[in-house]
Amino acid sequence: MNLHVVILAAGQGTRMRSALPKVLHPVAGKPMLGHAIDCARALAPQKIHVVIGHGAELVRERLDAEDINWVLQAEQLGTGHAVAQALPQIEAAEQILVLYGDVPLLRVETLQALSIQAGTEALGLLTVQMADPTGYGRIVRNAAGQVQAIVEQKDASAEQLQISEGNTGIMALPGRYAAEWLTSLSNDNAQGEYYLTDVVALAVSQQVPVQVAQPQDEDEVMGANNRQQLAVLERVYQRRQAERLMVQGVTLLDPARLDVRGDIQVGRDILIDINVVLEGRVVIEDNVEIGPNCVLKDCVIGAGSVIKAFSHLEGAEVGPLCDVGPYARLRPGTRLAAKAKIGNFVETKKAEIGAGAKINHLSYVGDAEVGAGANIGAGTITCNYDGVNKFKTRIGEGAFIGSNTALVAPVSIGDGATTGAGSTITQDVPAGDLGVGRAKQRNIGGWKRPQKQG
Amino acid sequence: MNLHVVILAAGQGTRMRSALPKVLHPVAGKPMLGHAIDCARALAPQKIHVVIGHGAELVRERLDAEDINWVLQAEQLGTGHAVAQALPQIEAAEQILVLYGDVPLLRVETLQALSIQAGTEALGLLTVQMADPTGYGRIVRNAAGQVQAIVEQKDASAEQLQISEGNTGIMALPGRYAAEWLTSLSNDNAQGEYYLTDVVALAVSQQVPVQVAQPQDEDEVMGANNRQQLAVLERVYQRRQAERLMVQGVTLLDPARLDVRGDIQVGRDILIDINVVLEGRVVIEDNVEIGPNCVLKDCVIGAGSVIKAFSHLEGAEVGPLCDVGPYARLRPGTRLAAKAKIGNFVETKKAEIGAGAKINHLSYVGDAEVGAGANIGAGTITCNYDGVNKFKTRIGEGAFIGSNTALVAPVSIGDGATTGAGSTITQDVPAGDLGVGRAKQRNIGGWKRPQKQG
Amino acid sequence: MNLHVVILAAGQGTRMRSALPKVLHPVAGKPMLGHAIDCARALAPQKIHVVIGHGAELVRERLDAEDINWVLQAEQLGTGHAVAQALPQIEAAEQILVLYGDVPLLRVETLQALSIQAGTEALGLLTVQMADPTGYGRIVRNAAGQVQAIVEQKDASAEQLQISEGNTGIMALPGRYAAEWLTSLSNDNAQGEYYLTDVVALAVSQQVPVQVAQPQDEDEVMGANNRQQLAVLERVYQRRQAERLMVQGVTLLDPARLDVRGDIQVGRDILIDINVVLEGRVVIEDNVEIGPNCVLKDCVIGAGSVIKAFSHLEGAEVGPLCDVGPYARLRPGTRLAAKAKIGNFVETKKAEIGAGAKINHLSYVGDAEVGAGANIGAGTITCNYDGVNKFKTRIGEGAFIGSNTALVAPVSIGDGATTGAGSTITQDVPAGDLGVGRAKQRNIGGWKRPQKQG
Repeated sequence: MNLHVVILAAGQGTRMRSALPKVLHPVAGKPMLGHAIDCARALAPQKIHVVIGHGAELVRERLDAEDINWVLQAEQLGTGHAVAQALPQIEAAEQILVLYGDVPLLRVETLQALSIQAGTEALGLLTVQMADPTGYGRIVRNAAGQVQAIVEQKDASAEQLQISEGNTGIMALPGRYAAEWLTSLSNDNAQGEYYLTDVVALAVSQQVPVQVAQPQDEDEVMGANNRQQLAVLERVYQRRQAERLMVQGVTLLDPARLDVRGDIQVGRDILIDINVVLEGRVVIEDNVEIGPNCVLKDCVIGAGSVIKAFSHLEGAEVGPLCDVGPYARLRPGTRLAAKAKIGNFVETKKAEIGAGAKINHLSYVGDAEVGAGANIGAGTITCNYDGVNKFKTRIGEGAFIGSNTALVAPVSIGDGATTGAGSTITQDVPAGDLGVGRAKQRNIGGWKRPQKQG
Repeated sequence: MNLHVVILAAGQGTRMRSALPKVLHPVAGKPMLGHAIDCARALAPQKIHVVIGHGAELVRERLDAEDINWVLQAEQLGTGHAVAQALPQIEAAEQILVLYGDVPLLRVETLQALSIQAGTEALGLLTVQMADPTGYGRIVRNAAGQVQAIVEQKDASAEQLQISEGNTGIMALPGRYAAEWLTSLSNDNAQGEYYLTDVVALAVSQQVPVQVAQPQDEDEVMGANNRQQLAVLERVYQRRQAERLMVQGVTLLDPARLDVRGDIQVGRDILIDINVVLEGRVVIEDNVEIGPNCVLKDCVIGAGSVIKAFSHLEGAEVGPLCDVGPYARLRPGTRLAAKAKIGNFVETKKAEIGAGAKINHLSYVGDAEVGAGANIGAGTITCNYDGVNKFKTRIGEGAFIGSNTALVAPVSIGDGATTGAGSTITQDVPAGDLGVGRAKQRNIGGWKRPQKQG
Repeated sequence: MNLHVVILAAGQGTRMRSALPKVLHPVAGKPMLGHAIDCARALAPQKIHVVIGHGAELVRERLDAEDINWVLQAEQLGTGHAVAQALPQIEAAEQILVLYGDVPLLRVETLQALSIQAGTEALGLLTVQMADPTGYGRIVRNAAGQVQAIVEQKDASAEQLQISEGNTGIMALPGRYAAEWLTSLSNDNAQGEYYLTDVVALAVSQQVPVQVAQPQDEDEVMGANNRQQLAVLERVYQRRQAERLMVQGVTLLDPARLDVRGDIQVGRDILIDINVVLEGRVVIEDNVEIGPNCVLKDCVIGAGSVIKAFSHLEGAEVGPLCDVGPYARLRPGTRLAAKAKIGNFVETKKAEIGAGAKINHLSYVGDAEVGAGANIGAGTITCNYDGVNKFKTRIGEGAFIGSNTALVAPVSIGDGATTGAGSTITQDVPAGDLGVGRAKQRNIGGWKRPQKQG
């Protein structure tokens, strides 16, 4: 079937009280429209047409891609008008699926069901059983269960107001009727708009069958018109992610306190403590434990590793059986080999840390290679930056860097070499040697302490 | 109208299991009584009379202010007796509004409605529709809807127990009747107390009209008698704050994980991530993003700035477009000019940081001025304290402080000056000069590593 | 009464998707089976028999104790079969209480009631009123309220499906009948298993009375078959802990964001801020305040101390009136005397910190004694490790350690001694002396900054 998707994304969203077009407001860090596009993509349509209006330039810039055809709706004259704008660019569509840029939580399965139900001969309509349908158009069916009409709240009889099946606005239009229907719409209503919903009446009057599909739950079809609704969507999304991870065998100490903003791959027997944030592409292998309050972005965490409380990893690859944190800050380009240990108040960046190497406390290791088994003392700083250039520090296997050492890059510490505590190391230390750069201590007897001034 | 407010705050609150008088227990960091007083203040009364008893001295000390008249209730003989204690000090009141020191969530609008409804001729009664009125006095009305009586739970008929309208105890007494009513109260009841509630019967018997007002929701009139109820009040308060911020156009990634304990002013298009705590007076300008787990107290955050995860700001002014955190600790007196950058494990205190200056890692900068565009290397410490006095460090524009530098204040680093990594700088470095204070490195060949002892 | 407890713990728990046997999955950091065992222990039975099967070795290894008799159920042939395996090892039991290793939240009071109700002559049955009993065996009673049968969901009539009293599977078997009943069970059912539940029918047919007890709430008898249910148990457990602490007079700013994983003792007027984790044995004395996002494990916090945001304490004893954090990392063996102060980005380990001593910023103090009133400057590092041995640092009373000092252990700084900022101290500094070990500064005029390379 030749399927085209049209996503309506032209609205301003005044109630958001925002300079950002409504559809760019994020759920789980991705614009609502991005969720709708990704859902559409999963259907493998011929093309995705996105109708934009308010903030059109910005929307396009943020989400442009090859499979998207951007359609400008210069004036916002209603949903029917919006779909009509895309029509000239949709050739030979057998089915046109209409989605909304501010309805981000639809499941692909739901749209597949809608699309298949409708086929090429019927109008497909996504309806939903609502706990409280107030304000929604009600689906009126005849005794045989066939959809007869959608009645808006204000036009509904007392009996019709009891109907709990509501209209979602999501539809699959049969290509053969779409043009005719959309050009037949009237704007003779209070808002003076052309409503897509009115195609249902047209279908019924022409005896085109109306096929109904329904989502798994009401959440799927929720949209956001203000920040409160946006927050509700965010929480629904997060609950789904937590559920998905638990089904895969992850222990979550509090499913209500996990935030997933990206694509997470998990192995077996992972434990995620409270209040963890996972962003971007995160791969967590078997038997990993992630402590409370950690933030991980674009990371791989190797099997059996432990990430302790308050750690913040970004663009890091952690090998197996590593011990990271608490308060470890791994920045992009950090790679830990097996059993490496990064302790508290340690920052790494573009750093290859060898197997079993340890950086336990209060250090900055950037633009560096640290050999297997090396031990980096507390307060070690790689001085990698001269104000304009960055230089590299190489520390050999089994090297021992004394505490409070400044390593002025470019510099190499050889395998098995040692540096004395408190040294500033500006020249290479050959393998097995001791490098020291510190002044001799002297004691001054009977030191007179400073007096309180002022 | 000559309005006086009487707040009852004499109770002990045994069920709190606390040495602190009940009304001093905090909601959102402010004593419950403080909330009641602030609400009263918003009505601009002639005077606020607070009736105190248990822990009277401490209550007064904590919340004393010019517009408060403290009234001691030496013996706790009931709510009617408590109000009566204040009466001699209330001259010529046309209306006396009675509030409670352990009911902190009342909205000003609710009290205004109550006060206006009642006027000077009627008794004003705040009642509330309750999901579960068990234990509360029920409001008995006649066919015309007029209040006839308040029937206590134990005295209520089966029919009266079905009434869901409960008494809150909050009243507006007409000044002209108050003295007479309060002196007419009887203590002929199980507790031997004089109940304020009994004035309703007096009003009815004297055909003084009873005017009823109701709060927006039940939460407004909740009190706290134990820590569980206190926690409920805290959460209701926080939900309101979250709601208020979202209405103003703030994106909250989890409204249930925001804590506001003070006065927060917000601009447009602000994003607040999970688990953030805002205390005191916090001003957040347009387009600011506050990362997960941040704590901000008494701060201004300039437009477009980003505060990253785990940052703790207190008494700091952050200019526009700054980049702060993660793990940044800005202490009082920190002021960042535009585009300044404070990175991880950096503490600042009484520090003026110039435009675009950077302190990226593991540093302590206190009692300092840092010029625009200066770069402070990792592990830099301003040695501002000699044990008794604090001294100032001045770093010029465009200066470059090498890593692991100790700056022994008082000391000045000139504009464009440089210090060598690992230096202890005890004397001024003139503009454009390089200051170095570190020992020469020497390498000792074939170093024999220490052996395991013991 | 001669009471024996049998805990069934042989199941695999396929739906956990885990390599770990189901009963070892933790709630609040303790295996579910561990909770069941602890609950059994509180009844002071003759012996606790744990029937194991899947992962038997690992289960035994993790939870072995003197009062436990491990019984292997080689094949999983049903609950009745499981109890029967233990029977030969239970001599002269007057009552056999059957519990489940994956039902961890039972209250001791509930089991006591069940045990006492049943006595030695009756079959005791724990049933529960369920909001949704779907899938559970229903308790069928006669007009007199006596239990007649347990009817499984699939066998229940429409009327029986309305019964909300469900079977928990928890039973007290009278010792005198147990052997006979268990050997009479049939496996003539769909699963081909011997069901313990069938003893109810046997008791009824033999006119042995069936005594029913019920838990306080449904939560008590919940089990976990998958990670979602495990997460529900975790949250129920945590809500109970929060409730318990509030009843004891602790203020919790958010009861839904407290995690207790161990035994917590609390004094009076403690405030615990949001998102705190308490693990192991934690004693919190009067008037302590614990800030947001702290993690405390195996600690004592003395009266009036304040633990500020993001602090992580493990195996530490904090004296009275101390000031710890934010971002303080106290590791095992840390002991703070009264009024000591540990500030941000400070790590301590095996460190005795004297009364009123201060370590305010960015330091590592390990294997150290710090005297009363000493002041340790920012960036101080005790160099306690030479790669193989650990050495001790002693700092005297009232000593002043300048900022950025490396103390190369073993080393002693005398009472009232001072070290100069930026020094590496390798030799003892006598009392009252000043120790300095730093190079003299020189300034190089007109320094030519590095140029951009590449």
